[in-house]
Amino acid sequence: MQLLKDRILAEGKYLDNGILRVDSFINHQVDAELMDACGAEFARQFANTHADRILTAEISGIAPALMAAKHLSLPVVYARKHKPITMPDQVYFTVAPSHTKGNMVDLIVSPSYLPRGEKVLIIDDFLASGSTILGLVRLVQAAGAELVGIGTLIEKHFEGGRRSLESLGVPIVSLVCIDSMEEGKIIFRD
Amino acid sequence: MQLLKDRILAEGKYLDNGILRVDSFINHQVDAELMDACGAEFARQFANTHADRILTAEISGIAPALMAAKHLSLPVVYARKHKPITMPDQVYFTVAPSHTKGNMVDLIVSPSYLPRGEKVLIIDDFLASGSTILGLVRLVQAAGAELVGIGTLIEKHFEGGRRSLESLGVPIVSLVCIDSMEEGKIIFRD
Repeated sequence: MQLLKDRILAEGKYLDNGILRVDSFINHQVDAELMDACGAEFARQFANTHADRILTAEISGIAPALMAAKHLSLPVVYARKHKPITMPDQVYFTVAPSHTKGNMVDLIVSPSYLPRGEKVLIIDDFLASGSTILGLVRLVQAAGAELVGIGTLIEKHFEGGRRSLESLGVPIVSLVCIDSMEEGKIIFRD
Repeated sequence: MQLLKDRILAEGKYLDNGILRVDSFINHQVDAELMDACGAEFARQFANTHADRILTAEISGIAPALMAAKHLSLPVVYARKHKPITMPDQVYFTVAPSHTKGNMVDLIVSPSYLPRGEKVLIIDDFLASGSTILGLVRLVQAAGAELVGIGTLIEKHFEGGRRSLESLGVPIVSLVCIDSMEEGKIIFRD
């Protein structure tokens, strides 16, 4: 998606540890119109999955997932990292290593919002090692729901996340795929 | 806003401690089309403030603020509760008591995304005691920016937050205002 590529080239900042800083348009300041366009593109690419709902992880997955949900007219659920007091005691729960924080984070979903048998589309901001997305996949499996696709704004292909997801046998869509960021130079795939 | 009132009556659940559970359409599962309609209504009511940006707090402020930002063609910034490694060391920082968690939460914004002199519109999900919104107001003031309005999806009028904000002298818009929830019966204002 050229609009997103252009923005990454203009504003993305390479930090150490393979981290791409995009906090001027995705995950602190958010460009709502760009997210809307990304949501429309996810909707176009996943229209034929006939998903019943979108699942994402707080915090930075919310913006792209919400916009995709709007364009697909679907409900979106975000896995919580801390159980709020408004959540029932019985939940779906898993832990996943956080790439940017270096610790483990909880992923918690209320069973009411991940019904058995539904088709679930996972949308998140980054596909890096794939660990957060695999955590979301475990929640889908725990619920007895069916995973029908995985969409991310930015894939860092060199971190191998796609390989860890391919065995799931569902379409994996990245709006932008980065092949390498060596010495801070961002090289896109294709 | 009738659409939101109807949804609260249909799905809102009264918990103890004056907490209204709306996690089936606002803050766990999110109705993206409802949030889009709420964003459009915020845009209509705040069009004449000529805001430069929207400020909200993660997590549940993101959905309504993002949709308002889309309709107003503005950037939105969400105050972080934990400083990510992608954020610079020098930040605007305040603490605010959390109504639903019973503890203090940090509110952190990168100075790059809250420039001095800009007109800032605050959007959040709830106006209860007003403590989170007052925290956001302190960030706006620390930045030397100008507050031009405060918008929330749901005001719990009986918790007095509006009184604590009125001295700021800016428009305060709630799409729905609840006068009382005694014994779980939700009574709307007007």
